[in-house]
Amino acid sequence: MNRLSGIAASNGIAIAKAFRLEHPELTVDKKNVTDTQAEIERFKQAVNESIAELEVIKKRTAEEISDKEAAIFGAHLLVLEDPELIGPITDKINNDSVNAEFALHETSTMFVDMFEAMDNEYMKERAADVRDVTKRVLAHLLGVKIQNPSMITDEVVVIAEDLTPSDTVQLNPKFIKGFITDVGGRTSHSAILARTLEIPAVVGAKSAMSTIDNGTIVIIDGLEGDILLDPDEATLAEYKEKQSAFASQKAEWAKLKNEATVTKDGVEVELGANIGTPKDLTGVLDNGGEAIGLYRTEFLYMGRDNFPTEDEQFDAYSAVLKGMEGKPTVVRTLDIGGDKELSYLTLPKELNPFLGLRAIRLCLEMPDMFRTQLRALLRASVHGNLKVMFPMIATLDEFRQAKALLLEEKAKLESEGIDVSDSIEVGIMVEIPSAAVMADTFAKEVDFFSIGTNDLIQYTMAADRMNESVSYLYQPYNPAILRLVKNVIDASHKEGKWTGMCGEMAGDEIAIPILLGLGLDEFSMSASSILKARSQLSRLSKADMEGHVDHILGLATSQEVEDYVKNL
Amino acid sequence: MNRLSGIAASNGIAIAKAFRLEHPELTVDKKNVTDTQAEIERFKQAVNESIAELEVIKKRTAEEISDKEAAIFGAHLLVLEDPELIGPITDKINNDSVNAEFALHETSTMFVDMFEAMDNEYMKERAADVRDVTKRVLAHLLGVKIQNPSMITDEVVVIAEDLTPSDTVQLNPKFIKGFITDVGGRTSHSAILARTLEIPAVVGAKSAMSTIDNGTIVIIDGLEGDILLDPDEATLAEYKEKQSAFASQKAEWAKLKNEATVTKDGVEVELGANIGTPKDLTGVLDNGGEAIGLYRTEFLYMGRDNFPTEDEQFDAYSAVLKGMEGKPTVVRTLDIGGDKELSYLTLPKELNPFLGLRAIRLCLEMPDMFRTQLRALLRASVHGNLKVMFPMIATLDEFRQAKALLLEEKAKLESEGIDVSDSIEVGIMVEIPSAAVMADTFAKEVDFFSIGTNDLIQYTMAADRMNESVSYLYQPYNPAILRLVKNVIDASHKEGKWTGMCGEMAGDEIAIPILLGLGLDEFSMSASSILKARSQLSRLSKADMEGHVDHILGLATSQEVEDYVKNL
Repeated sequence: MNRLSGIAASNGIAIAKAFRLEHPELTVDKKNVTDTQAEIERFKQAVNESIAELEVIKKRTAEEISDKEAAIFGAHLLVLEDPELIGPITDKINNDSVNAEFALHETSTMFVDMFEAMDNEYMKERAADVRDVTKRVLAHLLGVKIQNPSMITDEVVVIAEDLTPSDTVQLNPKFIKGFITDVGGRTSHSAILARTLEIPAVVGAKSAMSTIDNGTIVIIDGLEGDILLDPDEATLAEYKEKQSAFASQKAEWAKLKNEATVTKDGVEVELGANIGTPKDLTGVLDNGGEAIGLYRTEFLYMGRDNFPTEDEQFDAYSAVLKGMEGKPTVVRTLDIGGDKELSYLTLPKELNPFLGLRAIRLCLEMPDMFRTQLRALLRASVHGNLKVMFPMIATLDEFRQAKALLLEEKAKLESEGIDVSDSIEVGIMVEIPSAAVMADTFAKEVDFFSIGTNDLIQYTMAADRMNESVSYLYQPYNPAILRLVKNVIDASHKEGKWTGMCGEMAGDEIAIPILLGLGLDEFSMSASSILKARSQLSRLSKADMEGHVDHILGLATSQEVEDYVKNL
Repeated sequence: MNRLSGIAASNGIAIAKAFRLEHPELTVDKKNVTDTQAEIERFKQAVNESIAELEVIKKRTAEEISDKEAAIFGAHLLVLEDPELIGPITDKINNDSVNAEFALHETSTMFVDMFEAMDNEYMKERAADVRDVTKRVLAHLLGVKIQNPSMITDEVVVIAEDLTPSDTVQLNPKFIKGFITDVGGRTSHSAILARTLEIPAVVGAKSAMSTIDNGTIVIIDGLEGDILLDPDEATLAEYKEKQSAFASQKAEWAKLKNEATVTKDGVEVELGANIGTPKDLTGVLDNGGEAIGLYRTEFLYMGRDNFPTEDEQFDAYSAVLKGMEGKPTVVRTLDIGGDKELSYLTLPKELNPFLGLRAIRLCLEMPDMFRTQLRALLRASVHGNLKVMFPMIATLDEFRQAKALLLEEKAKLESEGIDVSDSIEVGIMVEIPSAAVMADTFAKEVDFFSIGTNDLIQYTMAADRMNESVSYLYQPYNPAILRLVKNVIDASHKEGKWTGMCGEMAGDEIAIPILLGLGLDEFSMSASSILKARSQLSRLSKADMEGHVDHILGLATSQEVEDYVKNL
């Protein structure tokens, strides 16, 4: 039995055969051909095989996953049907008497380089499509098999160097029992996906691909980050026990689904979920979410060729508000820019995009775009309990400007005879240190705060959370962060307002007792974490935790805080 | 009379003829030549003329400015003597029968592209040299005149789109009475240079180049940011009066050179200077600096091919400490990374370099490099009043690690029998919000704080101060910043420690009264601002300002603070 370890990225125990997801090296040599007509035929056959394969993958992805995920293969099919790409390749075979592989490689490289040089996100995506499709056709020409995770119909654990977006959209939780990647961290794309799909995962395992053969029996312990290969009977039994213990714990949690969230000493707090699309509602309700603490509207704007219309937005917001049946629903206005780009909105390149023109800054620069979103929200407001939240607020001026636009659009709609709710709360995301420090002045004008810890930690520590060289500074328990959180909560309560939290931290086992003691009113997290948090909170006493807060805030380091809470 | 306005970048009034500094467009056509030998001769002649010209500029720059600034032209001369560049050009003329301009252009473009593609700062500088030299030779071939500011021997006001580094090193304050650029802001390279040279400047004037002809009489009002063209007699008289008023004010300030800095109510504070090299000492002493509040050691590491040795560093640090004759001298350890790169140290590209591996983070990653600097500092400590300051400290752990390395090297030196001062203070730069928030815990372990406002503002507001799209968020008077400053000062005093400030803000007229009221112990600024600040402080009462602090910290916006202080 062999053992590896990595970063625990998604809870649970998986036991299944290994399935290695490999991206083969495809090398191309230039050869002279005499029968160019036969070579062109060979090329066309490879294209047709690729088309047939993509049709199957697309259909299967649409059936098993979703139409949205299937669309990427639609884009790939369009590339293969594009005469502007196919024509030059057959011409090249004909005119230069070269082999199809070489003609394909040369031509597609030219297109990829051209698209990539365009400094336009949309064209860069097209470059990625061409690159992906070229690989597929090349594989057919070379007789090499490309793996498509959507074709997996056995229960397996997927092992990969890393999962590309086009891999991940094909993962079907029915068959994929868990996965292991050699790269990545707890907040990487694949880790978040695993938690959404609720399958165990270990990432950053470094040597999984070089160690694990296809078919090896693998145990993934997503709680500890452990990987066991070819386990002996005793180990297998032990982990099957753990697996069923985890399942019964989940079942135990499930009983809390329709319960309120009440601490041991009888204090109620609210547990909400963070969502990206109306589709995520099912998960929220299945997990007993009492609110939407963060609806990230930017997904509405992504994966398309132009801005969503007011009506399209109205439909999405209404669907969420109706689905929540009057429960609080915090909708964050567009948070784009920084690392989140839109293919149809070209923004100047920035040296430090995380410190640049993004979120509310961009919306105030582009008021027409912003007003469209505000109108859609206002119109949808009659269908539920809407709370509007502005992201990346640094100064009171910005909040006043954004709120003024909202009120202007409200007045316009009303003058047009359109119904708008009169009880919409308007709040801000506290994710910039200046807003946390100035919470008392903000509290006089906003209706609520929601602390976005991912960014607040990043800016307070001046460390890019995506940059591995400084990841040691991403410290949610650093007393500096906790003090800012306290300042925000206290300021809101003093003015009779409430404070929520919608960063990763709100669902964190170590953070929850501290946040309870600090008086946080609403915890918003991944839907899949809600029941566990409810269970944890039911075992905690708020009064007890309040008694620890002063001591915790006086500690000097993140490690001291973690140790103290673990020993409570 | 015509009027323009821009950003006031450097105080004072200049009145002189306009000198337009233009960078001509040099276009190259491909032509066939029959007599290639004559063409090669023509090329060689242009090279020789360029060499002769560079020799003169280099000599003049060395005499009038400094050897360091002259070195850039030494690098240009080396390019012209490089057979690897010249050979391929004459070969190309010979083999392809093309004109010299085309051969030069093609060959140098190839080299520039190759150097730039290397992703190595040193090679990129070589690319800049080749590009600069190519332009010069091309101008000679085309019979177009290139302007060299070092050749100006009349009193003029320089008008330019922007000043390149190779322009600015040639500016001789004897003849250049002021300058106007169409681009740039108060903290741009050219604005800082103007303040160092103590010549009036207006930047960001937008239309100066399109409006002002050569020889036009120009008035620059560097206090207000005004530019007056072809002034009438009355205006000329008015500004000559302003000019002499400014001169007498400077003379008044100069009288304070040997005075202590004492407020109206008799409280002494310390006025220090920020310096980059031992050469800057003259300016500090001429302006009555009582301390070095910030010695940026990174300049020692720049503009060279390898790390400075321990002895080279020892010499520089000793020179500064000796020159200060026992006055406090705060030396900041290496702050490299982010936007500051070393040609001989290749670091991974970062998406957000300002939130990346820089300053103390990098030094702790590269302890050998760091230890060399610490040893040089420790050895130099016996020559003056050394205070060591670590930059970009986010957590107490980082400070403890850095201090431990310092103590280890001290013990080693002592065991080698080398003298080290026993009274070296060890402090941190407070420029990351977490350090400002946690100042109370830091104050128990550090000897002093120095608040670096440039970065502290940037991180607290989450806005890159170099990014014009978000420059509205660079708000020194935002109450969030002032509250953090207060937190740091109060924490230090509670533990009997002191707090300085070494950002732009310490010399700012609006900020000074607030900082005095907050109890700041040491103000460190450009040497040229010291006397003005001393004069301002002598007119302020600390007790009065203390009475305003609570009100100011309760204001909601930066604008409210500015208005309040202006009306005091």
